[in-house]
Amino acid sequence: MALIVMKFGGTSVANVERIKNVARQAIAKKKAGNDVVLVASAMAGVTDKLIGYLNELTPDHNLREYDQMVSTGETSNVPLIAQAIISAGEAAESFTGVQAGIQTNNSHSKARVVRIDTANLKRALGEGKICVVAGFQGYDPASGNITTLGRGGSDTTAVALAAALKADKCEIYTDVDGVYTADPRIVKDAKKLDVISHEEMLELASLGAKVLVSRCVELGMTHDIDIMVLSSLEDKQGTLVTSKLGGRNMENLVISGITSDKNQAKIVVSGLPDKVGTASKLFTELADANINIDVIVQNATRNELSDISFTVQKNELVRAKNVCDVAANRVGAKVHADENIAKVSIVGVGITSNVGVAATMFRVLAEHAINIQMISTSDIKISCVIDEKFAEVAVRSLHDAFITGK
Amino acid sequence: MALIVMKFGGTSVANVERIKNVARQAIAKKKAGNDVVLVASAMAGVTDKLIGYLNELTPDHNLREYDQMVSTGETSNVPLIAQAIISAGEAAESFTGVQAGIQTNNSHSKARVVRIDTANLKRALGEGKICVVAGFQGYDPASGNITTLGRGGSDTTAVALAAALKADKCEIYTDVDGVYTADPRIVKDAKKLDVISHEEMLELASLGAKVLVSRCVELGMTHDIDIMVLSSLEDKQGTLVTSKLGGRNMENLVISGITSDKNQAKIVVSGLPDKVGTASKLFTELADANINIDVIVQNATRNELSDISFTVQKNELVRAKNVCDVAANRVGAKVHADENIAKVSIVGVGITSNVGVAATMFRVLAEHAINIQMISTSDIKISCVIDEKFAEVAVRSLHDAFITGK
Repeated sequence: MALIVMKFGGTSVANVERIKNVARQAIAKKKAGNDVVLVASAMAGVTDKLIGYLNELTPDHNLREYDQMVSTGETSNVPLIAQAIISAGEAAESFTGVQAGIQTNNSHSKARVVRIDTANLKRALGEGKICVVAGFQGYDPASGNITTLGRGGSDTTAVALAAALKADKCEIYTDVDGVYTADPRIVKDAKKLDVISHEEMLELASLGAKVLVSRCVELGMTHDIDIMVLSSLEDKQGTLVTSKLGGRNMENLVISGITSDKNQAKIVVSGLPDKVGTASKLFTELADANINIDVIVQNATRNELSDISFTVQKNELVRAKNVCDVAANRVGAKVHADENIAKVSIVGVGITSNVGVAATMFRVLAEHAINIQMISTSDIKISCVIDEKFAEVAVRSLHDAFITGK
Repeated sequence: MALIVMKFGGTSVANVERIKNVARQAIAKKKAGNDVVLVASAMAGVTDKLIGYLNELTPDHNLREYDQMVSTGETSNVPLIAQAIISAGEAAESFTGVQAGIQTNNSHSKARVVRIDTANLKRALGEGKICVVAGFQGYDPASGNITTLGRGGSDTTAVALAAALKADKCEIYTDVDGVYTADPRIVKDAKKLDVISHEEMLELASLGAKVLVSRCVELGMTHDIDIMVLSSLEDKQGTLVTSKLGGRNMENLVISGITSDKNQAKIVVSGLPDKVGTASKLFTELADANINIDVIVQNATRNELSDISFTVQKNELVRAKNVCDVAANRVGAKVHADENIAKVSIVGVGITSNVGVAATMFRVLAEHAINIQMISTSDIKISCVIDEKFAEVAVRSLHDAFITGK
């Protein structure tokens, strides 16, 4: 008997009809002789509605209360799915993060899973029940506070549960049917990948490919969990994210994917005194405020003053700018924020071993008169921050150059 | 420093503007030097919406999943209220039933509070925070399952917390401004009562006066908690529910109130063999199915067969009828259900000491050609089950006869 973790996102459980369909899929796996743990998101739109209420009060949320609030989107959905399974004649039980034993740190709104106490889930599986677990949420055992795992948290829940329960499979059902070389809404001839390494998927995820979030892939990589990404609507082959790349065509593409991420904002702190520790102090304060920094560029010094530019997630811009304003005031520097940016990236295990990839990328962008504001590289990717309005043009022309070879 | 428990119902917290108003009221009490515990219901309409989703699947809910689902109406509202208080400059923290330590039995959808572990609330009060507690919910400590307390459960939460925390006051803010001699929407000249005993309020509550549910009054009576019922919209005198009736006018009305309850349904099981234990077996099975029975009438025997009629809450009719059908099939009896009934009652401590009250009630109903289907009496009330369509006429004419003296 295999143990399968199935995860369904918000559009797959957006109404009662779709929930019945999800229930049928889970029951089919169960009837085929498997133990089934189903992880679900909130109904599409519910989380945004809850956040909308909070935004009517303030954009500067108390994060403990934010988590308590938004986690209810999932909490209210899983009993509905369990009821759908029960009404279809199979035993089921729903679980909140607390009930599923998902313990996290106390980093509200982007908590990290520390440990999963699987006793309650194993009890229910032993009773022959399909376990329906609320994604995206956990709790801090020290305080009993409810926490949420941040964007794409339900995927993270699924992979973490697969690791903790030593599941045989982790299947992520989404509204796309796999991982593509680029967003098919932007690039018409994007190709579906049959298989991709955890490392490449990690870069694609962290760079804005919306199929899987990076933390979920990270967890899969650490615990060697194969993740199958597939469509919740059609029964067809998806993309396998795995460490076992043996099956992949050796003449594989150098570049696995092209991504763009518009969920970024840029902050420029200009006129900082060029002294040791200035930047370090600023980034410590940002870290203390629990803000994730992405690309960082420190400009060359002029007149003993330097500029630091960096990007943050758009939803953290207000908080990040507040921290920077305070820091800048102390030393007479200026803060400028820009929401109209995008990060365009190319990803592939072949990048370091293929000369000229970076040069080709910069040339393609230049040919389309796209100015590069910031650059960031790693072993398997190159990212450029550009004006948001050129994001689609950049992705299409890079896809032409690297994937379809036009 | 006094400790005040304030409870606000669904219409008082129906949107962000009203929530800001509730936050202001709680902050005013806090600034006046009190410790404040605020108990809140779900936004008006939210609970019905959640139940509506479940009803799309089946009318016969799994009650464990039902509780897990509907409790989220309150769980999602209290962090919003806490955020409103925080945004207005006062410290606050929201609490689920689990976080507030509200332990219940495992009787899903109408659980009873067994014990409240107040440690977490006291910790927050000690930190100077206004505690915002989700009404209507608790948890079964044996399983970790979330439970709900049934209709009016948030009032019960408030009084139970007032008792556990030894609060100085328990204030129930509602959309009416006190307890009236009859529903003012039915009886134009209904009078507001300044003070009423727990016992009378208990009868009014259990008979359908929607101001307070009976379990909440019961708790108040057991723990001698004075409950002030007052308007959340206007700042005026409410009704005090108390055991200290010294202040009440000695020439008080014989009858304190007239109520009607349309939330009842009648089941008639006819043709039961007239043997010892037949009725007992049926009611044991109904009790096992966790169904509350109200008025019971056993008809005189004819041909060694008897009829039993009883009333249940409308929302339990389907389940009750299922139990009866099974029992009736065993012995060849028939089951008939009638949803179109109402229970009309008169309540007052003077009933037993005043002859002729029952006779007057029956005469008034007869004068309006209203047939009495069932009768039930206690020391301080008389109830008649009648055709639902006469409920308003009955209440008005009884109010004329007993209160205004027309």
